[in-house]
Amino acid sequence: MTSPRARGSLRVLGIDPGLTRCGIGVVDVAADRSARLVHVGVVRSDAGAPIEERLAVIAGGIRHIVDTHAPQVVAVERVFAQHNRQTVMGTAQASGIALLIAGERGLPAATHTPSEVKAAITGYGSADKRQVQTMVARVLRLDALPQPADAADALAIALCHAWRSGGPVAASAALTPAQRAWQDAERLARR
Amino acid sequence: MTSPRARGSLRVLGIDPGLTRCGIGVVDVAADRSARLVHVGVVRSDAGAPIEERLAVIAGGIRHIVDTHAPQVVAVERVFAQHNRQTVMGTAQASGIALLIAGERGLPAATHTPSEVKAAITGYGSADKRQVQTMVARVLRLDALPQPADAADALAIALCHAWRSGGPVAASAALTPAQRAWQDAERLARR
Repeated sequence: MTSPRARGSLRVLGIDPGLTRCGIGVVDVAADRSARLVHVGVVRSDAGAPIEERLAVIAGGIRHIVDTHAPQVVAVERVFAQHNRQTVMGTAQASGIALLIAGERGLPAATHTPSEVKAAITGYGSADKRQVQTMVARVLRLDALPQPADAADALAIALCHAWRSGGPVAASAALTPAQRAWQDAERLARR
Repeated sequence: MTSPRARGSLRVLGIDPGLTRCGIGVVDVAADRSARLVHVGVVRSDAGAPIEERLAVIAGGIRHIVDTHAPQVVAVERVFAQHNRQTVMGTAQASGIALLIAGERGLPAATHTPSEVKAAITGYGSADKRQVQTMVARVLRLDALPQPADAADALAIALCHAWRSGGPVAASAALTPAQRAWQDAERLARR
C-alpha cells in the first residue's frame, strides 16, 4: 500500500546495503526541502542460508518496495574495501543488487559515502549515529527514532540524496548554509 | 545455440566477475574428469556508463548464457577486499550479480579462491596465469589458448568446481594425486 506522491516532490528510495539486514527507506522531498516518510523497513536474510539464496531474498525485498512505492531515484550507501573486511564483500554484493535493480527498472542511481550522508543530515561529516537518527526523526516528524539502525540509515541516505541533488529544485538553492560550506570545502579538497 | 549435455556429465557455468570484462565459461565434465567446452566468452560493460546500467548489462549477459546453455551449477571466483582496492568493489558487485542470478534460477552456486582454482587446474596453488590457460586449453582440447584472459579464467573456475566437487561422481575419487595432496594440505592448514 503506498501513498500518492505529493505534487512537485521527489520520491527517493534509500538503501543501507547489507546481507543480514538491508535497510530500506522511502521519502518524498519537496522543493522547500521538507520531507515526508513513505516507507521504512529492513529486508533480512538468514545468515545460515547459501549466499545465492540470501542475495535473491534481498533482491526480492527491494523489488517489492520499488513496485509498491515507485521511487524516482535510488540512493545507496557507498561501501569501502578498507572497512570491516569480514562483512564488506557481502555488503558490496548487496549494494550491487540494489544498483542492478535500479538499472533494470531504468531508475537513476547514486551512491553516497557515510560522511556525505552525515554531513547532509547534521551539517557535520563525523556526526555519530544517534545524531543522524535524531535529525532524521525530526525532519520526518516521527514520534520515535526509526528502528533498527539500518532502517534509520536508509532514510538518512534517501534524504541526503534529495538534498544534495537539490531534490526537485536546483541543488545550490536547496542547501543550508552548513551544507553549502561543506560542499565548497569538498570542492576545494578535490582541486 | 547450445549443444545437448552428454549423459551423466555435469554442466558448470564458471564466472570470473568483473565490471569492464566479466568472463563466462561453460563446460561439461564427465565422471572420468574429462571435459568439453560448451561456451566461452566475455560480457563487457562501458566504463563510462553509470554503475546501475553496467550491472544491468552484466546481469543480462549472464542470464542469456543461463537461458541458452542451462548449466546445473554456477561457480564464481571469490573476491578479496585486500586485492586492488580501486576495482574490488565493482568486482564484488559483479560477483553478487552472478550469485543472485544463480539464486533466482534455483541453481546451486559456489565460490572458489584464485589459489583453489590454480591448484585444481595445475596442481599448484601459485601457478601463473599462462600455466592455468595452457592446462585449460589442454583439458578442453582447444587449438589455442582461450582469449581474453578473463574468458580462460572463467573456464578454469568451472573446471575447478567440477573437479573439486567430484563432478558427477564422488569428490575424493575424482582427484588426481596432486590434488589429493593439496586437499590434505589445506585440511591440515585449517586445523
